[in-house]
Order: sequence, then C-alpha cells, then structure tokens
Amino acid sequence: MKVGDKKHYTRTISESDNYLFGGIIGDSNPWHFDEEFCKKTKFETRIAYGMLSSSYFATIFSKMFDKPVLYLSQNIEFLKPVKLNDTVTAECEIKQINGDKVTLLTSAFNQAGDKVISGEAKLLVIEDIENWGKNK
Amino acid sequence: MKVGDKKHYTRTISESDNYLFGGIIGDSNPWHFDEEFCKKTKFETRIAYGMLSSSYFATIFSKMFDKPVLYLSQNIEFLKPVKLNDTVTAECEIKQINGDKVTLLTSAFNQAGDKVISGEAKLLVIEDIENWGKNK
Repeated sequence: MKVGDKKHYTRTISESDNYLFGGIIGDSNPWHFDEEFCKKTKFETRIAYGMLSSSYFATIFSKMFDKPVLYLSQNIEFLKPVKLNDTVTAECEIKQINGDKVTLLTSAFNQAGDKVISGEAKLLVIEDIENWGKNK
Repeated sequence: MKVGDKKHYTRTISESDNYLFGGIIGDSNPWHFDEEFCKKTKFETRIAYGMLSSSYFATIFSKMFDKPVLYLSQNIEFLKPVKLNDTVTAECEIKQINGDKVTLLTSAFNQAGDKVISGEAKLLVIEDIENWGKNK
C-alpha cells in the first residue's frame, strides 16, 4: 500500500440497479422514475441515483486492501448526471497515508470519459483484527 | 422554505436492504456479509453499509421541497456503526439559502439517539423546470 496506488470498478448501471436502490431507500422521486417528466428537462431521460455510483468506492476498498478497513468519511461532488445504462468507472487512488489512516481520491467517469463524481474518502486500516476485536 | 426547516425519514435497516445494497454495488465484504468474522470484532455482528443510511438524505429531499432539486454535493462522516435491524432516523435541516442553492445539515441517529452520521449537503432548487428544460 503506497501513495499513488489505484483501483477501479466498472459497472453499467441497469434500470433494475436504480429501481432497487430507490426501493431500499424509500424514495421514488421523478428524476429516477418518471421518464415523461425527465424528457421535459435537459437531461432528457431518467438519471441514476448519485449515491449509487458513489457507493462503488466502498466496493473498491475491499479489493484494494488486504486488511479490513473501516469507512471514516466521504466527500462527494456530483459533477454530471449519470443516465440509466451509462457505464460508470469508479476509481480510488491513495493520496495520503498517516499511520493507520488512509486518504483516497475518489472519482467516477462515464463511458465518454467525463468525470461525473469527484471526492475524497478517509479509511481506517485495521492491522490486527483479532486484537482490535479484543479491545472492546 | 427557510433556514431551520427540518424533515426526517426513519427506517429499520433490514438484512434484505443491506444484502440488496451489496448486490447493486457489487460488494460482498465481510463487515456486511460474514457474521462469524464480525463476531470476533468489537462490532460483534454484521453492520449496514454506511452509504445506505447516507442515501436516506436523498429520500428526504424529495419530501422537503415542492420544486425539483438536484444534488450538488454531500459530505459524510461515519461516526458509529449501524447494525442490521437498527432503526435509523436521517434528518435534514436547512442551514443556508443562497439564491437557488440550499445547504443542509444532514445527520442520522440510531434508535438509542446516538448520532451515527454527520454531514452537509448542497442542492440546486429548480424554480421553473419547464424553462430550465428548454435551455438545453
């Protein structure tokens, strides 16, 4: 693990991903579920939840570290809308390591290469889960 | 809409909410899916995705404003773990209004009243969706 290390996760956001997301958060707002409303806006079609693409960073963390990590914080800027069936590549890059705390640059891009999300995450890397577990 | 306005959303995070979340982000890390691993840690049981509770803020926005809003940014600090079957109350409070941009304090609490998430969101309130739609 060193500064500059990068990992990514690519996924085509299906309509069902987005509809399930709405279900598990209890939201059904027109940006995500009303195609006729969206047609009248400059987005022209339903968009995916911003927090859905942002959650791919968590997916990357578990592939990036060989130790358990805990999520401490996440800052997100939603730069551009992600439409249903867009293919999003989320990317994490280690920016800083400070003892057991790691800061990562977290970005996401659409299939055209446009940055759709920009942000930063902080994680705690647990070196020895058994002992961390014992200091309850 | 004025500074100090508040709305909340309360939900018991079911095991299925959390498992669906893992499915739609492509993650299956032990904090969320391996009860035996979690038993050895100080959390003692599986925890819910932090980004799942954080996504309840989006649920609140659509109940809070009578106009369409767009999500510009979200900062999140994960203060305490949320366990499966915890009942989370997410809360948004208007902190500042600057033209069509609104800043909200975004917090979440568990059933014991402990703050589990702290943060801030920025939204764009679209006054006239038809005209906003026409300036494509």
